[in-house]
Amino acid sequence: MKARVHVTLKPGVLDPQGAAIGQALSASGHDGVKSVRQGKVFEIELEDGDRAAAEAKIDDMCRKLLANTVIENYAIEVI
Amino acid sequence: MKARVHVTLKPGVLDPQGAAIGQALSASGHDGVKSVRQGKVFEIELEDGDRAAAEAKIDDMCRKLLANTVIENYAIEVI
Repeated sequence: MKARVHVTLKPGVLDPQGAAIGQALSASGHDGVKSVRQGKVFEIELEDGDRAAAEAKIDDMCRKLLANTVIENYAIEVI
Repeated sequence: MKARVHVTLKPGVLDPQGAAIGQALSASGHDGVKSVRQGKVFEIELEDGDRAAAEAKIDDMCRKLLANTVIENYAIEVI
Protein backbone atom coordinates (compact mmCIF):
# COMPACT_ATOMS: atom_id res chain seq x y z
CA MET A 1 0.00 0.00 0.00
CA LYS A 2 1.28 3.44 -0.89
CA ALA A 3 0.56 6.79 0.66
CA ARG A 4 1.55 10.32 -0.16
CA VAL A 5 1.94 12.89 2.61
CA HIS A 6 2.12 16.62 1.92
CA VAL A 7 3.67 18.81 4.57
CA THR A 8 3.27 22.54 4.01
CA LEU A 9 3.84 25.62 6.12
CA LYS A 10 0.70 27.03 7.74
CA PRO A 11 -0.64 30.21 6.15
CA GLY A 12 1.01 33.20 7.80
CA VAL A 13 4.26 31.37 8.60
CA LEU A 14 7.16 33.05 6.82
CA ASP A 15 8.71 30.98 4.02
CA PRO A 16 12.10 32.53 3.10
CA GLN A 17 12.98 29.53 0.92
CA GLY A 18 9.79 29.96 -1.12
CA ALA A 19 10.40 33.72 -1.36
CA ALA A 20 13.94 33.10 -2.64
CA ILE A 21 12.61 30.73 -5.29
CA GLY A 22 10.03 33.33 -6.33
CA GLN A 23 12.78 35.94 -6.68
CA ALA A 24 14.95 33.54 -8.66
CA LEU A 25 12.05 32.88 -11.02
CA SER A 26 11.48 36.61 -11.56
CA ALA A 27 15.21 37.19 -12.01
CA SER A 28 15.37 34.49 -14.67
CA GLY A 29 12.63 36.14 -16.70
CA HIS A 30 9.55 34.25 -15.49
CA ASP A 31 7.15 37.10 -14.87
CA GLY A 32 3.66 36.91 -13.41
CA VAL A 33 4.69 34.93 -10.33
CA LYS A 34 2.87 36.36 -7.31
CA SER A 35 4.16 34.00 -4.65
CA VAL A 36 5.87 30.66 -4.15
CA ARG A 37 5.71 28.47 -1.08
CA GLN A 38 7.72 25.32 -0.72
CA GLY A 39 6.69 22.19 1.09
CA LYS A 40 7.69 18.55 1.38
CA VAL A 41 6.14 15.42 0.02
CA PHE A 42 6.77 11.93 1.39
CA GLU A 43 5.94 8.80 -0.58
CA ILE A 44 5.57 6.03 1.95
CA GLU A 45 5.23 2.36 1.06
CA LEU A 46 3.57 0.31 3.76
CA GLU A 47 3.00 -3.42 4.14
CA ASP A 48 -0.42 -4.32 2.82
CA GLY A 49 -3.27 -4.19 5.27
CA ASP A 50 -6.37 -2.30 6.26
CA ARG A 51 -6.71 1.09 4.60
CA ALA A 52 -8.18 2.87 7.63
CA ALA A 53 -5.50 1.40 9.88
CA ALA A 54 -2.81 2.57 7.47
CA GLU A 55 -4.25 6.07 7.47
CA ALA A 56 -4.28 6.14 11.28
CA LYS A 57 -0.70 4.87 11.36
CA ILE A 58 0.49 7.56 8.97
CA ASP A 59 -1.39 10.23 10.90
CA ASP A 60 0.58 9.14 13.96
CA MET A 61 3.87 9.30 11.99
CA CYS A 62 3.02 12.83 10.85
CA ARG A 63 2.27 14.10 14.33
CA LYS A 64 5.36 12.48 15.84
CA LEU A 65 8.02 12.78 13.14
CA LEU A 66 7.15 14.01 9.68
CA ALA A 67 5.54 17.37 10.44
CA ASN A 68 6.07 20.11 12.99
CA THR A 69 2.42 20.75 13.78
CA VAL A 70 3.20 24.10 15.40
CA ILE A 71 4.04 25.64 12.03
CA GLU A 72 3.10 22.99 9.45
CA ASN A 73 -0.05 21.38 8.11
CA TYR A 74 -0.11 17.89 6.68
CA ALA A 75 -2.42 16.02 4.33
CA ILE A 76 -2.49 12.25 3.86
CA GLU A 77 -3.55 10.56 0.65
CA VAL A 78 -3.61 6.75 0.51
CA ILE A 79 -3.15 5.56 -3.09
CA MET B 1 -4.39 31.24 -10.43
CA LYS B 2 -2.68 28.64 -8.29
CA ALA B 3 -0.60 25.66 -9.29
CA ARG B 4 1.05 22.86 -7.39
CA VAL B 5 4.25 21.30 -8.67
CA HIS B 6 5.57 17.99 -7.35
CA VAL B 7 9.25 17.26 -7.85
CA THR B 8 10.30 13.71 -7.00
CA LEU B 9 13.43 11.68 -7.59
CA LYS B 10 13.24 9.35 -10.57
CA PRO B 11 12.82 5.67 -9.73
CA GLY B 12 16.24 4.10 -9.26
CA VAL B 13 17.91 7.30 -8.05
CA LEU B 14 19.22 6.80 -4.50
CA ASP B 15 17.37 8.78 -1.83
CA PRO B 16 19.48 8.77 1.37
CA GLN B 17 17.22 11.37 2.99
CA GLY B 18 14.15 9.19 2.43
CA ALA B 19 16.03 6.13 3.70
CA ALA B 20 17.03 8.02 6.86
CA ILE B 21 13.40 9.00 7.46
CA GLY B 22 12.34 5.37 6.97
CA GLN B 23 14.92 4.26 9.54
CA ALA B 24 13.84 6.97 11.98
CA LEU B 25 10.23 5.81 11.63
CA SER B 26 11.19 2.19 12.34
CA ALA B 27 13.40 3.27 15.25
CA SER B 28 10.52 5.21 16.79
CA GLY B 29 8.25 2.17 16.75
CA HIS B 30 6.39 2.67 13.46
CA ASP B 31 6.62 -0.78 11.96
CA GLY B 32 5.41 -1.92 8.56
CA VAL B 33 7.20 0.85 6.63
CA LYS B 34 8.74 -0.66 3.50
CA SER B 35 10.23 2.48 1.99
CA VAL B 36 10.10 6.26 2.15
CA ARG B 37 11.05 8.68 -0.60
CA GLN B 38 11.09 12.41 -0.11
CA GLY B 39 10.26 15.02 -2.69
CA LYS B 40 9.44 18.69 -2.91
CA VAL B 41 6.20 20.49 -3.54
CA PHE B 42 5.91 24.08 -4.76
CA GLU B 43 2.70 26.07 -4.45
CA ILE B 44 2.91 28.81 -7.05
CA GLU B 45 0.49 31.70 -7.31
CA LEU B 46 0.37 33.26 -10.75
CA GLU B 47 -1.37 36.32 -12.07
CA ASP B 48 -4.72 35.33 -13.56
CA GLY B 49 -4.74 34.39 -17.20
CA ASP B 50 -5.10 31.55 -19.60
CA ARG B 51 -4.90 28.12 -18.01
CA ALA B 52 -2.97 26.47 -20.86
CA ALA B 53 -0.52 29.39 -20.98
CA ALA B 54 0.01 29.11 -17.23
CA GLU B 55 0.72 25.41 -17.56
CA ALA B 56 3.26 26.05 -20.32
CA LYS B 57 4.90 28.78 -18.23
CA ILE B 58 5.22 26.50 -15.20
CA ASP B 59 6.57 23.69 -17.36
CA ASP B 60 9.29 26.09 -18.49
CA MET B 61 10.04 27.05 -14.84
CA CYS B 62 10.33 23.37 -13.93
CA ARG B 63 12.77 22.58 -16.71
CA LYS B 64 14.91 25.65 -16.05
CA LEU B 65 14.85 26.08 -12.27
CA LEU B 66 12.57 23.96 -10.11
CA ALA B 67 13.62 20.45 -11.12
CA ASN B 68 16.84 18.78 -12.11
CA THR B 69 15.47 16.71 -14.98
CA VAL B 70 18.52 14.44 -15.01
CA ILE B 71 17.47 12.84 -11.73
CA GLU B 72 14.01 14.26 -10.98
CA ASN B 73 10.50 14.01 -12.40
CA TYR B 74 7.97 16.76 -12.05
CA ALA B 75 4.18 16.94 -12.20
CA ILE B 76 2.13 20.12 -12.62
CA GLU B 77 -1.38 20.53 -11.31
CA VAL B 78 -3.23 23.80 -11.95
CA ILE B 79 -5.86 24.37 -9.24
